[in-house]
Amino acid sequence: MGSRAPSAPLQSKLRQVSFELLAECPHTRARAGVLHTPHGDIETPVFMPVGTQATVKGLTQRDLAEELGAQIILANTYHLFLRPGHELIRKLGGLHRFMSWPNAVLTDSGGFQVFSLSGLRKISDRGVVFQSHLDGSSHTFTPESTVDVQLAFGSDILMVLDECPEYPVSHEYARESMHRTVRWAKQANDHFRSRIVESPTRHALFPIVQGSMFPDLRRECAAALVDLDADGYAVGGLSVGEPRPLSLEMVEATEDLLPRDRPRYAMGVGMPAELPEYVARGIDMMDCVLPSRNARNGYLFTSAGRVIIKHARYRDDERPLDEKCRCYTCKSYSRAYLRHLFQSGEILYAVLATRHNIRRYLDIMRGIRHAIISKSFPEYLKCVRAAAADVD
Amino acid sequence: MGSRAPSAPLQSKLRQVSFELLAECPHTRARAGVLHTPHGDIETPVFMPVGTQATVKGLTQRDLAEELGAQIILANTYHLFLRPGHELIRKLGGLHRFMSWPNAVLTDSGGFQVFSLSGLRKISDRGVVFQSHLDGSSHTFTPESTVDVQLAFGSDILMVLDECPEYPVSHEYARESMHRTVRWAKQANDHFRSRIVESPTRHALFPIVQGSMFPDLRRECAAALVDLDADGYAVGGLSVGEPRPLSLEMVEATEDLLPRDRPRYAMGVGMPAELPEYVARGIDMMDCVLPSRNARNGYLFTSAGRVIIKHARYRDDERPLDEKCRCYTCKSYSRAYLRHLFQSGEILYAVLATRHNIRRYLDIMRGIRHAIISKSFPEYLKCVRAAAADVD
Repeated sequence: MGSRAPSAPLQSKLRQVSFELLAECPHTRARAGVLHTPHGDIETPVFMPVGTQATVKGLTQRDLAEELGAQIILANTYHLFLRPGHELIRKLGGLHRFMSWPNAVLTDSGGFQVFSLSGLRKISDRGVVFQSHLDGSSHTFTPESTVDVQLAFGSDILMVLDECPEYPVSHEYARESMHRTVRWAKQANDHFRSRIVESPTRHALFPIVQGSMFPDLRRECAAALVDLDADGYAVGGLSVGEPRPLSLEMVEATEDLLPRDRPRYAMGVGMPAELPEYVARGIDMMDCVLPSRNARNGYLFTSAGRVIIKHARYRDDERPLDEKCRCYTCKSYSRAYLRHLFQSGEILYAVLATRHNIRRYLDIMRGIRHAIISKSFPEYLKCVRAAAADVD
Repeated sequence: MGSRAPSAPLQSKLRQVSFELLAECPHTRARAGVLHTPHGDIETPVFMPVGTQATVKGLTQRDLAEELGAQIILANTYHLFLRPGHELIRKLGGLHRFMSWPNAVLTDSGGFQVFSLSGLRKISDRGVVFQSHLDGSSHTFTPESTVDVQLAFGSDILMVLDECPEYPVSHEYARESMHRTVRWAKQANDHFRSRIVESPTRHALFPIVQGSMFPDLRRECAAALVDLDADGYAVGGLSVGEPRPLSLEMVEATEDLLPRDRPRYAMGVGMPAELPEYVARGIDMMDCVLPSRNARNGYLFTSAGRVIIKHARYRDDERPLDEKCRCYTCKSYSRAYLRHLFQSGEILYAVLATRHNIRRYLDIMRGIRHAIISKSFPEYLKCVRAAAADVD
């Protein structure tokens, strides 16, 4: 498969987003690196906050970039395609300019949302026809069209259209679906390469390893996608309802087949204690709505475990949410005040809670990276596992 | 009434919040001054953003104090009495500490909300019994109890309990109600003075001129309240549905009776073009939910008039909301992006829109103050009136 062979000179020249490995843990598969993009360098492993509709709910772009230090965010192709539309975003100078975001953007292909959000949908080998969850209007995504949509956005990293099967599905269905995903990835990749030859802008396209919860299918898929010599690879179809150990197993089954010199992205994961587990299995990039969605729902992540802010015990709790956190929320406000805002349904609650939870995730990732570089990642992992076992 | 006589030495010593007049317009009643409070100096005329539940919806305290330059905000006694409760706020160090707000706070007496928000309510000479809009529980506000509640908050400026009649009411009812308001003000004032003798903290208590839309009652009320030698005076019962010229008339009817050396506060006003009209009639302080509530509803105030952000014409409008505004929203985002956020129901819309609208109001007040000090207020007023006549 040649996945670990050095890139040929021609390929290097074509490389749109380059990945630099800085350190590898000798005891796990963890790596620390830098992903160079047209919108800045991204220190990996990295967690990407989710900005579905071109906004990370409740945060300004300045808070996100300057205070929280987010180097890359994720935006959703499905949502932005439907509203405000990719042609409008192109006309307004692309997603970065539209939303006034200076750093990198990764957009998903829309596949996951088509399968989870839209009404009637019909998959064929050509692509997927679906109904908008907003107004019921009918649309089609093909491997080629979602590349075009994401190029209109000007995303730094594009994802190929994939089929993300429910959990559980039969081996037979998973196999058929995985083969479709591989075919779509090849079509998307061909289309992408012809499009970027036309245009001088720099982007990367990541294919997505599928195969449901079947290690043999995951390996077959990874092997086939490696032939595309992509700038990075994703492991998709996780967090679809399967037991958590199974998600990690699927990454393990895939990882050794993916090129060592390209970033690996586990899509849609995970809880704080899971972040280092994915990193230990060779993952460099992750995204998840958990820190932002849970924040809004009153579920806060702290260095001492979770805080369910509505609980009466926080009513007169003068302490900051997390005594070890340096975010604006923890530096300025008490748990009692946060609880009051939550109970009162105030916007400021969502603003402050999201700010903290995203900061917590980014701080965890910075801690993980530091541990890898300082050669203490195995000890770091041990501590996290011991703490996780202690938490209710 | 001695309202314009210099304060006697004893009175000066007792003065809790002192007002310094810096400039008076020779052609109108407009004044510029400084209100000295335990939580900083307030440049008047001033607009006070409304932070009903100990938060100005959508803004952090840092944005409000540092970026927008708000020197004082208003919080609502009725809401905070019901949730989280004044005893909790007292226990947590008072409202400033509870909400992490470094500048001054004015709290209303709760009267207006009792009359506009609560369920069944019964007025007697003793006070008002009312049902919580949150859970239907029964509570009583008396002139003395609302002083105690506001002292528990640690407000810099407290308001006396008043009866705020609906519009319209008969002269007979308005007279009876006004007399009750005057009696309550005296009781509140006596209670306040005995309470602050006990306690070394500094506060001010403002009585409220009522009298519905009857100039004779307004004047009778003002004359009676001036005898209390209060640190400042409010004109209440405005913006209750009356035609706008009538609100201004009620202020005119009252103003010459109020002591020149004390701040005057017009409660619950107004639209941008009305702000200088109140100032021209001798008003130093105003508050209103309009800039924040309208922001959330998509109604934005700009130096070139209103912008209803949902309108299709803004769909691809790359310009900032207000080209002349220096707020974060206008410096960073386009109308097209704001419209997208509004249409998508995103939290960031409320955050950015409120930031702009509050900034707009505070900028207007800074412009008014500058005009008074630089002796150009009549010209300023002329321009505002001409522009208002132009606007649809």
